[in-house]
Amino acid sequence: MLYVEQLLTLFEAYRKDHPFRGPVPELYEPARYLMELGGKRLRPVFTLAVHQLFRNQLNEALPAALAIEVFHNFSLMHDDIMDQSPLRRGKPTVHSKYNINAAILSGDWMLIHTYEILNQYKSKLAQSIIRLMNETAIKICEGQQRDINFETRTTIKKEEYLDMIRDKTAVLLAAAARMGAMTAGASEEDQKHLYHMGLNAGLAFQLMDDYLDAFGDQTGKMNGGDILQNKKTLLFIKTLEKANDEDRKALLDLYEGREEDKVPKVLELFTRYGAGDKLKALSQEYNQKASDALAAVEASSSRKEILNSLLTELLKRNI
Amino acid sequence: MLYVEQLLTLFEAYRKDHPFRGPVPELYEPARYLMELGGKRLRPVFTLAVHQLFRNQLNEALPAALAIEVFHNFSLMHDDIMDQSPLRRGKPTVHSKYNINAAILSGDWMLIHTYEILNQYKSKLAQSIIRLMNETAIKICEGQQRDINFETRTTIKKEEYLDMIRDKTAVLLAAAARMGAMTAGASEEDQKHLYHMGLNAGLAFQLMDDYLDAFGDQTGKMNGGDILQNKKTLLFIKTLEKANDEDRKALLDLYEGREEDKVPKVLELFTRYGAGDKLKALSQEYNQKASDALAAVEASSSRKEILNSLLTELLKRNI
Repeated sequence: MLYVEQLLTLFEAYRKDHPFRGPVPELYEPARYLMELGGKRLRPVFTLAVHQLFRNQLNEALPAALAIEVFHNFSLMHDDIMDQSPLRRGKPTVHSKYNINAAILSGDWMLIHTYEILNQYKSKLAQSIIRLMNETAIKICEGQQRDINFETRTTIKKEEYLDMIRDKTAVLLAAAARMGAMTAGASEEDQKHLYHMGLNAGLAFQLMDDYLDAFGDQTGKMNGGDILQNKKTLLFIKTLEKANDEDRKALLDLYEGREEDKVPKVLELFTRYGAGDKLKALSQEYNQKASDALAAVEASSSRKEILNSLLTELLKRNI
Repeated sequence: MLYVEQLLTLFEAYRKDHPFRGPVPELYEPARYLMELGGKRLRPVFTLAVHQLFRNQLNEALPAALAIEVFHNFSLMHDDIMDQSPLRRGKPTVHSKYNINAAILSGDWMLIHTYEILNQYKSKLAQSIIRLMNETAIKICEGQQRDINFETRTTIKKEEYLDMIRDKTAVLLAAAARMGAMTAGASEEDQKHLYHMGLNAGLAFQLMDDYLDAFGDQTGKMNGGDILQNKKTLLFIKTLEKANDEDRKALLDLYEGREEDKVPKVLELFTRYGAGDKLKALSQEYNQKASDALAAVEASSSRKEILNSLLTELLKRNI
């Protein structure tokens, strides 16, 4: 059994052992650049940690872990174009550093490469894993489209927002976890538990991300980025729901405009209506559901220790 | 045995029976729009016609035919963004009609959907077909990148240009043909012959496309589109190679500038050095290679009739 740090080291060694290469370097270079920007490698670590619940053949789980991380970076590359984001992990996004065409094409290549990696498994396993990848990837496109649709709508229901982040981000952590179980030959039932673990952990993670984007952040992103981009996160939705008429109008006006102290003014409204605390509480609820799903898996509690600590660290954002 | 028209009708019925659908309509609508613009359906017809060389179970070939056409439309959608093309088949391109983000995301969805369709086959066949799809899709990205690289280079060698169009367009017709053979359980050797048939037919087709873009066109595109976009086709390369110093300078200057009668002036230079005739001759050479590859396949000559007529029609551009 390997600890999180060791799983990460194992994954990074495998990743570096499988560099992006081919006859047209300009195609892989932007992909390499983005992958090298780092990130937490949360999804591959989940794949490996889940595999370890059942088996110690981590070699079997590594291709799935890499495919998931390549897919994740593909979706970041294309989302950053769509969101016109200048920075990713404190560095220029691919379309800023290179150009939009490079980010489109290199992203396409990464999506195809995801399938190339997954298709290495034996045919029956490859087929199941690719089926899960397809369902997941399609939900992620749908989530991104829902997010785009929100931009031109004023009111979003809480459930609609949760559906959006479930599709846009949580399903990938769910698939990462399930692939770990699949590559270990786990039962269908345990695969489902672990999918739900990942899904709920993904929701908890994204809600905490929304919280930190507004109220405090160690990830190198500018504070209040979502507010400046008029993202209708749950902080906005909750505040709009609870606010008196005057504050509701103030919040909507602030989101319409570009005034200089927009961020502190919006944060003040979020705080006045306790939206931040509610968001944290909801994130913890989902994290509890993730723990419950893990508890239901047929594996020894000593084998579950690493995943349990991962779920705890996830909310603290120490990883 | 079905004739080309019947294969096309069969394909269109199958395609319409498998509409793009799901919970977020804005995602599939741009894909539907592009697919409905029509086109020759050359690739799926090849898949079906090749399948018929060996078997009459066209139901087995239809998913591969659809996947290939969906992939083709994905690549058109993203290429049109990269090339900033306003029109496709005489109608607004997806990014012009909707917006760039819609064209990126709906294109991504189509690429994933390609794999969804192919993953329906039984696991061993699915794995082989997906492997071919991956290799093909990666070559197509590489071909597009080569094409982009040419934009900032002055001199391109003939072989480099042929490599580019081989990767960017011919490999998809080759894969379409081979998938027809795979779904019919053809031998490895026949699969290879048919891949080469498709590859050479694809080269012949693209060269004829370049010719028609310059000298005459019934496809609804504006004449001289490639020239206006400074595309370094073989017409340009051949003329540059043969021209005297004065004409070479004139051609390079014309490609640098945007003068109003750029197209007729460039065409006059192409004609003066016989570049059009050379291009047509080369296209016919590749078409002959395609016919030779078909001749080598173990199937009765009566079964080959439809494909032989397809190869002939391809150059006449009657289909």
